[in-house]
Amino acid sequence: MIIDCHGHYTTAPKALETWRNRQIAGLQDPAQRPKVSELTISDDEIRESIEQNQLRLMKERGNDLTLFSPRASFMAHHIGDFEVSSTWAAICNELCFRVSQLFPEHFVPVAMLPQSPGVDPKTCIPELVKCVEQYGCVGINLNPDPSGGHWKEPPLTDRWWYPIYEKMVEYDIPAMIHVSTSCNACFHTTGAHYLNADTTAFMQCVQGDLFKDFPTLRFLIPHGGGAVPYHWGRFRGLAQEMKKPLLDEHVLNNIFFDTCVYHQPGIDLLNTVIPVKNVLFASEMIGAVRGIDPTTGHYYDDTKRYIDASRILSPQDKQAIFEGNTRRVFPRLDKLLKGRGI
Amino acid sequence: MIIDCHGHYTTAPKALETWRNRQIAGLQDPAQRPKVSELTISDDEIRESIEQNQLRLMKERGNDLTLFSPRASFMAHHIGDFEVSSTWAAICNELCFRVSQLFPEHFVPVAMLPQSPGVDPKTCIPELVKCVEQYGCVGINLNPDPSGGHWKEPPLTDRWWYPIYEKMVEYDIPAMIHVSTSCNACFHTTGAHYLNADTTAFMQCVQGDLFKDFPTLRFLIPHGGGAVPYHWGRFRGLAQEMKKPLLDEHVLNNIFFDTCVYHQPGIDLLNTVIPVKNVLFASEMIGAVRGIDPTTGHYYDDTKRYIDASRILSPQDKQAIFEGNTRRVFPRLDKLLKGRGI
Repeated sequence: MIIDCHGHYTTAPKALETWRNRQIAGLQDPAQRPKVSELTISDDEIRESIEQNQLRLMKERGNDLTLFSPRASFMAHHIGDFEVSSTWAAICNELCFRVSQLFPEHFVPVAMLPQSPGVDPKTCIPELVKCVEQYGCVGINLNPDPSGGHWKEPPLTDRWWYPIYEKMVEYDIPAMIHVSTSCNACFHTTGAHYLNADTTAFMQCVQGDLFKDFPTLRFLIPHGGGAVPYHWGRFRGLAQEMKKPLLDEHVLNNIFFDTCVYHQPGIDLLNTVIPVKNVLFASEMIGAVRGIDPTTGHYYDDTKRYIDASRILSPQDKQAIFEGNTRRVFPRLDKLLKGRGI
Repeated sequence: MIIDCHGHYTTAPKALETWRNRQIAGLQDPAQRPKVSELTISDDEIRESIEQNQLRLMKERGNDLTLFSPRASFMAHHIGDFEVSSTWAAICNELCFRVSQLFPEHFVPVAMLPQSPGVDPKTCIPELVKCVEQYGCVGINLNPDPSGGHWKEPPLTDRWWYPIYEKMVEYDIPAMIHVSTSCNACFHTTGAHYLNADTTAFMQCVQGDLFKDFPTLRFLIPHGGGAVPYHWGRFRGLAQEMKKPLLDEHVLNNIFFDTCVYHQPGIDLLNTVIPVKNVLFASEMIGAVRGIDPTTGHYYDDTKRYIDASRILSPQDKQAIFEGNTRRVFPRLDKLLKGRGI
């Protein structure tokens, strides 16, 4: 079985974006804000948006199941206040839940949180609880920078975030550490901000001792871990200077990397330096890079091809990356699949 | 000949830091600011600080010459105003000049600029002119984020920076794009901010068309280009979506990467995906990662070993990375060496 642990609903029906644009316009005049009930998207519209896009590509590529969360760049936690984020997150999470109901064999939901800059993360707990208990979400996306490129929240190791972690531990769910749109002109969203956030989050964990407080907490760092595997020697050396334990012991029981790295040499590096047990298959399609690589004739984001072609990984390693590791890191997914006899 | 294009005077005599601390303390009370003349560092002190540190390691490792600039993390352009930065830059640049006078065979100076957040970069021109004309600096370090991790300046492709570029083109000198200390608690200086800045600067250049305006402008992106080579497929795909030319044509006539990547697999990746002509040897020693890698028994930052051990590079490639490329990217260095018959 092949599980893609990183998919977003980037192809939601246009009505969603229209509603969001009205919500944003309504920031100036709250009376103009649209009601949630004014957004109507039919099951057929959802089916079409999935069948013609993600599901079509999954079948072409041979991916069986995608962990599916709201579009990352549309989370835009910097817009409006908690109320605005809360309404928006509820709508987006419900849509992903509906996708999972319409295509239960192929999509399992992961929740976005109604974060808002400077607002206590514990305000996100009710949405998190609803998503896990009612929607069957098996994980969450946690945005370390709800300001959108201004980085005003404390580091992930700060007690500020602990209410979220306590709930994650209680539910035994991991968080993908995933920022949203950059509204800082210096940072291109998918070409800089995403990768920078991955590197930043990892280094925060190296600096801190978060996993002493939460030994079972699990973070999934997307986009192959940003710059981290490429600079693995640097991070090992920095941890050493800080008198931290070896990275294996210090963070690799708790931090995992996905395979959203869009060329063979990058995937090969990832699998050269990061232990197999810490790598989870993912493509983030249909996402930042949608084109076909003229040098290979295949989609850049068809990351399954790179894993298939790897000479570094054994068949057992590939199986772990495609399925086993993800079932281990997402125990609620494993339970769901076992319940289905898979 | 082996040229390290990325060295900082991280081992300057303690008196420098003491003077700087007094300058910073003086921000509260300008009357307390120390005079430049109150800083006295003898030639013997400089000799000792170099002979026991950089020069010792250069000899051990077989590096002949280092392009030497003031300590990057101490530039701290966010501190004080232009006047403070200006005084500080002048002091630091003069010290590197003195190093180059005391050890002309081994050190050639590169200048820091007296940048200050929000201040027009053209204010840096007089220091730049002095450093090139009087000190023989062959390049500059340009900080894309003088705020120190808050990223408030426009992207490097903005006309804001053009006065610097015009002077660089006139003098035919490259700039290393190098940030300084992070004062944003989210970003560890050497484990996140440096790498993020490298990725950010590259992506700014991909997004823009700077090199149409300045076809001969050259940027050296340190630390192996941050996350860029590891995500080369992502950047190729993003450029493609933006309808930009292929990266070779779009940016690789103007952007170069150093080899400050502290493990063999990282260096191998760099040399797998980036053309040899765009890679310049560097170690940034004695810098962020000073320890010995227990898995190899050698210094993490002894990057010459990784190039020597590369099976990807031919002897000619290695020669280009160790010397030829750097002489091409730094024509004033080439001229200096030719004048010495080298």
